[in-house]
Amino acid sequence: MWHGRFKHDTAKIVQDFTQSLDIDFRMYACDIQGSIAHVKMLAQTGILKPDEAEKIEAGLNKVLDEINSGKFTPSIDLEDVHMNIEARLTQIEPLGSKLHTARSRNDQVATTTRLYLRERLLKIKDVLKILLEIILDNADKHKGAIIPGYTHLQQAQPISMGHYWLSWFEAFMRDYKKLNFALENLNECPLGAGALAGSTLPIDRELTSKLLNFTAPTRNSLDTVAQRDYMLDYHFFACEFALHVSRLCNDLIIWNSQEFGWIILPDEFCTGSSMMPQKKNPDVLELARGKTGNIIAQMLDLVINLKALPMTYNRDLQEDKRCLWQSIDTVESVIKILSALLEKVDVDEKSALATLEKGYSLATDIAEYLVMRGVPFRDAHFQTGKLTGWCIENNLKFSDLTLEQFKKFMPAADEDMLKILTPFESVKRRNIYGGTGFEQVALQINEGRERLKMLA
Amino acid sequence: MWHGRFKHDTAKIVQDFTQSLDIDFRMYACDIQGSIAHVKMLAQTGILKPDEAEKIEAGLNKVLDEINSGKFTPSIDLEDVHMNIEARLTQIEPLGSKLHTARSRNDQVATTTRLYLRERLLKIKDVLKILLEIILDNADKHKGAIIPGYTHLQQAQPISMGHYWLSWFEAFMRDYKKLNFALENLNECPLGAGALAGSTLPIDRELTSKLLNFTAPTRNSLDTVAQRDYMLDYHFFACEFALHVSRLCNDLIIWNSQEFGWIILPDEFCTGSSMMPQKKNPDVLELARGKTGNIIAQMLDLVINLKALPMTYNRDLQEDKRCLWQSIDTVESVIKILSALLEKVDVDEKSALATLEKGYSLATDIAEYLVMRGVPFRDAHFQTGKLTGWCIENNLKFSDLTLEQFKKFMPAADEDMLKILTPFESVKRRNIYGGTGFEQVALQINEGRERLKMLA
Amino acid sequence: MWHGRFKHDTAKIVQDFTQSLDIDFRMYACDIQGSIAHVKMLAQTGILKPDEAEKIEAGLNKVLDEINSGKFTPSIDLEDVHMNIEARLTQIEPLGSKLHTARSRNDQVATTTRLYLRERLLKIKDVLKILLEIILDNADKHKGAIIPGYTHLQQAQPISMGHYWLSWFEAFMRDYKKLNFALENLNECPLGAGALAGSTLPIDRELTSKLLNFTAPTRNSLDTVAQRDYMLDYHFFACEFALHVSRLCNDLIIWNSQEFGWIILPDEFCTGSSMMPQKKNPDVLELARGKTGNIIAQMLDLVINLKALPMTYNRDLQEDKRCLWQSIDTVESVIKILSALLEKVDVDEKSALATLEKGYSLATDIAEYLVMRGVPFRDAHFQTGKLTGWCIENNLKFSDLTLEQFKKFMPAADEDMLKILTPFESVKRRNIYGGTGFEQVALQINEGRERLKMLA
Amino acid sequence: MWHGRFKHDTAKIVQDFTQSLDIDFRMYACDIQGSIAHVKMLAQTGILKPDEAEKIEAGLNKVLDEINSGKFTPSIDLEDVHMNIEARLTQIEPLGSKLHTARSRNDQVATTTRLYLRERLLKIKDVLKILLEIILDNADKHKGAIIPGYTHLQQAQPISMGHYWLSWFEAFMRDYKKLNFALENLNECPLGAGALAGSTLPIDRELTSKLLNFTAPTRNSLDTVAQRDYMLDYHFFACEFALHVSRLCNDLIIWNSQEFGWIILPDEFCTGSSMMPQKKNPDVLELARGKTGNIIAQMLDLVINLKALPMTYNRDLQEDKRCLWQSIDTVESVIKILSALLEKVDVDEKSALATLEKGYSLATDIAEYLVMRGVPFRDAHFQTGKLTGWCIENNLKFSDLTLEQFKKFMPAADEDMLKILTPFESVKRRNIYGGTGFEQVALQINEGRERLKMLA
Repeated sequence: MWHGRFKHDTAKIVQDFTQSLDIDFRMYACDIQGSIAHVKMLAQTGILKPDEAEKIEAGLNKVLDEINSGKFTPSIDLEDVHMNIEARLTQIEPLGSKLHTARSRNDQVATTTRLYLRERLLKIKDVLKILLEIILDNADKHKGAIIPGYTHLQQAQPISMGHYWLSWFEAFMRDYKKLNFALENLNECPLGAGALAGSTLPIDRELTSKLLNFTAPTRNSLDTVAQRDYMLDYHFFACEFALHVSRLCNDLIIWNSQEFGWIILPDEFCTGSSMMPQKKNPDVLELARGKTGNIIAQMLDLVINLKALPMTYNRDLQEDKRCLWQSIDTVESVIKILSALLEKVDVDEKSALATLEKGYSLATDIAEYLVMRGVPFRDAHFQTGKLTGWCIENNLKFSDLTLEQFKKFMPAADEDMLKILTPFESVKRRNIYGGTGFEQVALQINEGRERLKMLA
Repeated sequence: MWHGRFKHDTAKIVQDFTQSLDIDFRMYACDIQGSIAHVKMLAQTGILKPDEAEKIEAGLNKVLDEINSGKFTPSIDLEDVHMNIEARLTQIEPLGSKLHTARSRNDQVATTTRLYLRERLLKIKDVLKILLEIILDNADKHKGAIIPGYTHLQQAQPISMGHYWLSWFEAFMRDYKKLNFALENLNECPLGAGALAGSTLPIDRELTSKLLNFTAPTRNSLDTVAQRDYMLDYHFFACEFALHVSRLCNDLIIWNSQEFGWIILPDEFCTGSSMMPQKKNPDVLELARGKTGNIIAQMLDLVINLKALPMTYNRDLQEDKRCLWQSIDTVESVIKILSALLEKVDVDEKSALATLEKGYSLATDIAEYLVMRGVPFRDAHFQTGKLTGWCIENNLKFSDLTLEQFKKFMPAADEDMLKILTPFESVKRRNIYGGTGFEQVALQINEGRERLKMLA
Repeated sequence: MWHGRFKHDTAKIVQDFTQSLDIDFRMYACDIQGSIAHVKMLAQTGILKPDEAEKIEAGLNKVLDEINSGKFTPSIDLEDVHMNIEARLTQIEPLGSKLHTARSRNDQVATTTRLYLRERLLKIKDVLKILLEIILDNADKHKGAIIPGYTHLQQAQPISMGHYWLSWFEAFMRDYKKLNFALENLNECPLGAGALAGSTLPIDRELTSKLLNFTAPTRNSLDTVAQRDYMLDYHFFACEFALHVSRLCNDLIIWNSQEFGWIILPDEFCTGSSMMPQKKNPDVLELARGKTGNIIAQMLDLVINLKALPMTYNRDLQEDKRCLWQSIDTVESVIKILSALLEKVDVDEKSALATLEKGYSLATDIAEYLVMRGVPFRDAHFQTGKLTGWCIENNLKFSDLTLEQFKKFMPAADEDMLKILTPFESVKRRNIYGGTGFEQVALQINEGRERLKMLA
Repeated sequence: MWHGRFKHDTAKIVQDFTQSLDIDFRMYACDIQGSIAHVKMLAQTGILKPDEAEKIEAGLNKVLDEINSGKFTPSIDLEDVHMNIEARLTQIEPLGSKLHTARSRNDQVATTTRLYLRERLLKIKDVLKILLEIILDNADKHKGAIIPGYTHLQQAQPISMGHYWLSWFEAFMRDYKKLNFALENLNECPLGAGALAGSTLPIDRELTSKLLNFTAPTRNSLDTVAQRDYMLDYHFFACEFALHVSRLCNDLIIWNSQEFGWIILPDEFCTGSSMMPQKKNPDVLELARGKTGNIIAQMLDLVINLKALPMTYNRDLQEDKRCLWQSIDTVESVIKILSALLEKVDVDEKSALATLEKGYSLATDIAEYLVMRGVPFRDAHFQTGKLTGWCIENNLKFSDLTLEQFKKFMPAADEDMLKILTPFESVKRRNIYGGTGFEQVALQINEGRERLKMLA
């Protein structure tokens, strides 16, 4: 059935397959912005007459109004946002047929996309900055809260929860830097690259670039229409960001289990079960973790697309935007929901301390104490290991032991050792730059506030 | 601004973030189909009374009608398609509150998704079969057309264009097999797995399975709600298929360049340029090639999602469908457009022959001729290589040479050698199973027709 | 410095860059096996004389001996394993110059690789079967052990640890099936496809295929030298397998934390810390999880390689084996270490039960009890939810409650309800096919044993 | 057989599986460098006595000598490079047991890896700079050579081959910038982060950082041992670079086909065929393109590894280096071979011009000429399109036409139009910034030379 139909439907099939309105119409305002700059330049350079330019600009603004107010519906007969706008313009203002002078869709698409991408990334910068502030606030709020620090998901050493939040402050600051790098790299103006080789008309690329707030025109017309590195730069940011989110959410999900149990999630970020009445599931965190794959996949979409693509523009590149918007929409929503959630996460300090007391996470403190009494670290490590093994066998905690019992394993131990064997002392005494000591955490919070203020 | 708003908007943000209507509402008919089977089983096993079951079934059919006719609009307050349908059912028919007996959303989602996926994959099988038919038709149509065969994008040996089409017949037949494998693997019934551990109620999983045309109930309830291998199976098919398409399209794009020039693409599958009036671009082929990244990325989305996910169901898995539908929609559209296009591709035989005559692709024929005259292949290869080098230097073709000239390089050459030195003879004489010889191509076309008839 | 040197070093640089000995020499025995079959066929078809064939075969066996005994060192001047063997053969036996008759490296490489890959995959089948046996043994050993079952990493319902192991039995059985699918698909003989178009010599491809235990010669010569689907099939298996391993290991790592604490890992599979004397880290499980990325990346390597590759063989394909061996070596080592480890994993049943008692994982049992007393499930779910909320607020367990207290929330409750509210009863009563009930677990173990026996 | 053996072999299996010597021993010199800095700091801060530190340093230098001279063979019993060196040190100098004071393998590994990675990336910068120089030299050499410029692999407009090389200059300059970004980001000192929380001993992290030429100590100890962003940064560079290489190689492969035929590859970068005597295959370019997948896959390996990894260090991270070295080794070799090859690529200008003359790539020049005569671009485009269609139908080139024939389609045409209708004029007249005009190409070459000089 379907087979026979082909002969007659072909045009429609091809149109549906090749149109890009579903992925490019959202850029309409940027397309018009780019066209207006182009027209102003054409007038300035004498390629258009001043009044021609004015009329075209007025026409373009009219189209913008029509779209903004929902009066204009684009048609897939006209393939994409660019053709739809030009066609509508020319209906309104016949001089529209001069708009495409010294321009190709290749440089036009690149310009429109960069403008729109810039807008979106600036917005992501804003929300990412808010996330950074919230994390810093959390660090401040929880700087005195002591939790177990883990390596290999085994209790390692007690740390300040503030220190934990600061670790994510560092990670997301790197993301912020990477985002700025992407923004810097995309901020060059493609207009004038033409289809691939420039134009024979005496256009002024510097001018267009200035009018659109780009830092400079791009340097090579072939590269301009062929490359999508400015999109890759964003995807690399997004990939790294998504990995950070996946790890942060995973931590909170584990710590929120009944078994760990020293993180309190706000009710409104959890949901129940359709079958099990007792459940309070950390759905938002799980979904945010689950979107990692989606964000990274969008990067790979473009990467695979670009592999071995021949010289300059190929229609394959139309697909570059599908994954870009998918990624940006997701990243923006994840940042926002995460900010909202993190603002309300709390620590159950009593529960965290109880957990710590069941373990032997002060062992390193003992070993380092011995080092300060002159014991070589390897010996100190060995003695403490022996002691820990004996405690486990006899079901004893360090806090159950007398000095004499300690001394059997480590002759260099003395009265003052007992005083340092608390989670509080353990955290406090890690008072070196970058360490979990309370003083250091306070220092990093202050520095963090300064760094946030300085952010471009 | 936005930051402060959070406190009040939270519920809305969470709802927007966690809802899945945009990816699961399309499965509504399958969800109702699954619920009806579930209810029938509950009645059969005595868990519901017969009339209760009938009323619930009637209610479900009413909801189905409402959705089909566009009367029912789902609400994101109710999270997903499943809750929306159950809620609407219970408004219509209060006994709806008994529908979820012995069922969890976890096994319900898995069932609905398998039903819907099965439907979609069966459709893809249909269109893939049509593509296979068209390729076989092309093989038949072009079985006499001689084109250059390439390795390393260098002319290697002349082949029949029919043979080329047959190579894709093999590739897409493997895809078809892989699709069947995916269909077979997904065809087990999850209902009864419950949230993760089954149910304490005396349900009959065999019955539900039969009612839904599954081959059997799944064997382990934990695995049932946790695994997404049945989706991976589809993605693996899609990945391999996309790679095939990327290579086929790439060939046609290259052969359609002015420089190669012996493929004729139908006008309606090409588009022009906004700047360059002379262009006729193979856009459809490029776009199909460009979608390779998209299809493969969807697989990686799920793969990354599944990595290191804890035991049984986690909310991350809600994202499994986003990439699945994206992939299926794309694959289906690519198959259809490719079928439509391939039906109309033609070979410019004169141009193909002219191209062949410029090269030395009969060199292997010479070497193999010499082998039949007793020359060891390595010597024959060496002699022919020398001859070819000499021809290139002197700007001569094999067809320009006299027997004497041949004999200088290869003493074993004789009169009959000259006769085989045409592209036609070259193709014809590769008359071994799987080879490009005309007889073999005809044989493979016939076998292909038989294989197509036997396809499940 | 380095720049200037180029002019003189070029040959060496090119050789180093293009040689493939580091990835193909390991296949030497299979290459010789393929050559011997080829020679036998050339004799059978009269292309070689019987004594010529015998001498070549003897020479090949001599080369095999030399390599096996370490006497022969391949040279990168000769690019690859194939050329090295042919060159050495021809030194030993001048008739070696007839070996390459009616063969190209393209079909030779494909044949050698399929032979070697078949060997390796058969071995992986063997070790995978052992893993399946061990998992079944574990299921048997732990079929009476009760652990918390999780969804969203929140306690959901009590399950049998045997049931948990069975869930992985299902997953790895699917992998086994996929591996068989890969083996079936690769088992066709490429020899005779030549460079791309077959041969003009009257070879017998059926015969070669039989001699090498392939099921049939491949059907299309172009496809034969161009396609790598038979490698993709393996990679798809490996990808799915790696995801399974990542999830299984992740579960065990979490359950082995002090906080969960009801899994006992054998000491010899854990390691200590260089700084923290108390640590016992689940390193093997972490490394196995960490290799997930490696295995999946190898698949992507080939996928990207194949994207948009032109017709038939291109030198890019030389890289196909690097990722294949990397993946196979890793997968084999992961299966082995996992088998060794799983054999010794134990459950701390007391600790698991203690964990369960802190939660409310019997809530579903209550709701389903109510359903059997005629309460609609939604109401039962609501009543149990209310009760649970009240218990949490008042810090009570279900087991602390009297019947009267229950009845306040759920009037339908009765004496017999109290009896079912134990983890043991909860597991036992999920006695439906695929459920966690002890009977069902025993049934699945028995069926599992039968299925293992039937495995090809 | 194998199964039974497990019980006895386990230790060996675990050792083989968990050792990392195969991936970390290559970093031995950096590990010793880091240890020496650490020891100096311990002495400076009074934690070690000056003579203790001197003896340990002397011991470390002895170990370095032993390894450099091949006298020392590491043992997998000691797991990794770090333990091997410390153990050997302690044999030579018993005070070696004090080396690990205030240090964990977690911060040690991170430090060693950053030092080694820095070394390798600096080397890659050097070779990448050479590649940039060669490309610029090529641009200079071929600035007057005219080739067809392509979009959609269809001839679009004539361009200067110098302009083409410049497009890759831009692309690789972006890569260079990205590499610098990676180098900047990795250049912080992890030492002092300890296992995860710092140290209780009064170490001086600033000092160690200075001694190792890092810009500063890292700011958060948890983040320091947990994050691998500094590796991702490299992989992102490598991914983008690989895509560039894949596209450049693909262009040259296509242009080197007999059909395109206006690129001349040096013989020593091509190879022949084992079956077809006439072949001259662009193997190096194909292999470089084929390694794209490998390079990108290494990035994905780490990405998948990092996904959802719990807090701070997990043993999974040991795998981070396998993919890193694989990628770096490949990237370095690709840059070198590409440099060597590109130095010798030549253009067959006659052939390129002949190709251009068969097409209609001057159509845009006509349209833009008309624009300068006042014709609106859309009309000019339409008139030229009509003309081109008519030419194709009548098998005429633009150069065959008289002014009268032009005028029938485009009344605004005049005498002077005929003069601009040559590829030379077409290139020359695209004299705008970034365009292909000869003047612009010369300008960009000069600017390129300046930019190269300024490179850090």
